[in-house]
Amino acid sequence: MSLIVMKFGGDALGDKGKGENRGGQEMLRGASFHEEKFRHMARIVAERRKRGDSVVIITSAMGDATNRLLAMARALDANPPARELDMLMSTGEQQAIALMAIALHAEGLTAASFTGPQVGIITESVFGKARIRNVDTARLERAIADGVIPVVAGFQGATVDNEFTTLGRGGSDITAVALAAVLKADVCEFYKDVDGILTTDPRICPNARKLDRITYDEMLELAAMGAGILHSRSVEFAKNYQVALHVRSFLHNQPGTFVVEEDKDMEDTVISGVAFNREEAKITIAGVPDRPGTAAAIFDRIAMARIMVDMIIQNAASDGKNDISFTVSRADFAETIRIMKALAEEIGASGVRGDNTMAKLSVVGTGVRSHSDVAAKMFRALADSGINIQMIATSEIKLSCIIAESQLENAVRVVHDALEERVRDVRPA
Amino acid sequence: MSLIVMKFGGDALGDKGKGENRGGQEMLRGASFHEEKFRHMARIVAERRKRGDSVVIITSAMGDATNRLLAMARALDANPPARELDMLMSTGEQQAIALMAIALHAEGLTAASFTGPQVGIITESVFGKARIRNVDTARLERAIADGVIPVVAGFQGATVDNEFTTLGRGGSDITAVALAAVLKADVCEFYKDVDGILTTDPRICPNARKLDRITYDEMLELAAMGAGILHSRSVEFAKNYQVALHVRSFLHNQPGTFVVEEDKDMEDTVISGVAFNREEAKITIAGVPDRPGTAAAIFDRIAMARIMVDMIIQNAASDGKNDISFTVSRADFAETIRIMKALAEEIGASGVRGDNTMAKLSVVGTGVRSHSDVAAKMFRALADSGINIQMIATSEIKLSCIIAESQLENAVRVVHDALEERVRDVRPA
Repeated sequence: MSLIVMKFGGDALGDKGKGENRGGQEMLRGASFHEEKFRHMARIVAERRKRGDSVVIITSAMGDATNRLLAMARALDANPPARELDMLMSTGEQQAIALMAIALHAEGLTAASFTGPQVGIITESVFGKARIRNVDTARLERAIADGVIPVVAGFQGATVDNEFTTLGRGGSDITAVALAAVLKADVCEFYKDVDGILTTDPRICPNARKLDRITYDEMLELAAMGAGILHSRSVEFAKNYQVALHVRSFLHNQPGTFVVEEDKDMEDTVISGVAFNREEAKITIAGVPDRPGTAAAIFDRIAMARIMVDMIIQNAASDGKNDISFTVSRADFAETIRIMKALAEEIGASGVRGDNTMAKLSVVGTGVRSHSDVAAKMFRALADSGINIQMIATSEIKLSCIIAESQLENAVRVVHDALEERVRDVRPA
Repeated sequence: MSLIVMKFGGDALGDKGKGENRGGQEMLRGASFHEEKFRHMARIVAERRKRGDSVVIITSAMGDATNRLLAMARALDANPPARELDMLMSTGEQQAIALMAIALHAEGLTAASFTGPQVGIITESVFGKARIRNVDTARLERAIADGVIPVVAGFQGATVDNEFTTLGRGGSDITAVALAAVLKADVCEFYKDVDGILTTDPRICPNARKLDRITYDEMLELAAMGAGILHSRSVEFAKNYQVALHVRSFLHNQPGTFVVEEDKDMEDTVISGVAFNREEAKITIAGVPDRPGTAAAIFDRIAMARIMVDMIIQNAASDGKNDISFTVSRADFAETIRIMKALAEEIGASGVRGDNTMAKLSVVGTGVRSHSDVAAKMFRALADSGINIQMIATSEIKLSCIIAESQLENAVRVVHDALEERVRDVRPA
């Protein structure tokens, strides 16, 4: 008998309203409840129980409930106190667990819902993005031993003073991984409206296909690129505690993608996917005097403005002057240019130029580090399509290029297809 | 400086949907949030604080949130587990306290929301209608001492095992009175969309007017009659712990009605109001043999069917046979007749007759017991209008008549006007 942690996201339990359709009053008034969705997930649980497995369920708030609650708070106060936001937000998950337990009861199962604090999820005293400090498993273990299916609210905990906290973005996934870790579950399953992790975005590249396995590190690189399937904090947590993850569809019963530690088989393979990010802007400070501390001055100034920098490129100086280039999110472009123009004078650089129509294309995979032909194939495919590479950066398992956004979709297709023979396709053991 | 407990009901914080407009999907999808209502109540609190009073706020769920949550649960399961219903229901109040605290913050006040369990409201282990066992005031007292306005969720508590419970109908009022009692508040204020307690229904009797004061017992008689302003459990609780109540309007700043212990002034006065209930049905079992145990047999049988009996009349036997009459709610009429017809044969009664077009008219007031002219005036007023009295029952502070419902509205007007000089009109001390 296995112990399975099953995580149901907001889209498994309700409608995620589309931003453009749900502004203003609609956001304040709509509700996301769909009884068929709860019934459907309850039947999936019933199937698991029939196979003799013990299960623990973690839920997010249904649909866009969290956004609706936030809209209410902001209608009252542009800057609502973080403590009160957490009090408000945690009701979304609490409604979902109670309704899920009721749906399980309607399927003839015995279930009991628990809030985060009720199962001893103790966090640090930071509202809105608390980290889990401790989990007391006694109550959950008792329920499991009694044959009761615990339905636990994701995203929430309490401080040692019993103040309610939330775990921030991706918080429900973190709850699921944390409980899987402390309960020593065999696997932590994430039920999604996708088949698993794909090699790239199928809307852009029709040849995209599902991966059977991926390593934690590859998943982290993909998640950081905005693949949006699992938040990187939960993948890091899973890696640290060696929790096997399984990203699968709630629409059918086929296996999805397992996220696991790297093993021998996987080293031999090359890439797990082609990721991208459209919202890139590139800034170059030209003619920076080659003195110790100038790079520090640049990035200190940017950090003070709370702007996140992604890639940084500096070539070795030849004539005592460097060009330093870096990328920021497009939303931060104008402010970054303003800051850099002021700084350029101070440090005696010759000028600042930038382009906010860039995109980043990355090839991710454990094989990147050992197979130099990956880079060659990627660069060749781009060149053959007339796509100019503006910046290149590499990490252990990622190779990224900055290119013009107008060429991105074509670039994804040609790179994906050029490397397709290298894409991992190992069936789960 | 006074300590004021302020209770905000669902209609102070949101829309109560009308039953006929909000069935089915509408009930599942609607939301009751209205930012103006929260802002309005926050301004009332700000005014109180300006006067230097300390305040503790208790809220219900906004508008018809509780009914909407119940509709979701019932859409999933006709008979949802009581524990899960309490988990679900308690989110309604939790949303209201967080939003209220945010609205107070927007008014420049310092507030902190607390769930029932967070302020140590410990209940017995009964889901759906738990009674409060204990309240630990430490956390509330600390907040008050720190100048923070506590906003506490009504209707909810937790067992000693930290299972969430709700207090049943009128539960938020009970929370308010219980906290006023343990905190030794000067008064517990209930903010309503009415001016206070009226002498009768103004829709029927244009001469109805607001009472300045009423005793707990009078209020209990009115509440039991369905006056609907305060639930009788909270009035009983207030009476037991001598908590002064103040029912007032959230639409203006005029005093409402104080509900207090009887004092010398009030004994001299006569009635506090004319109450009524339309949904009455009268059943008479004729020719009941005058043997010990026959009355018990009748009412045992009715109790087994969980039917509530209101008035019971039995005249002294003359010929060894009694007529026993009683009233039930109109919804129970058909079943009661069926049960009684079966029983009549068993006990040798001669027959069963009934009328489900009755109404009850009551005069309530501490003066009823000492002023026999009240009864005389009431009966005279009814007789002068050609209204036939079918049953009469009296208690210490109430005198009730059963009459035809078709004559009720006229009866309310003539009795109210006949006794108007007797209606209490003492200004609060």
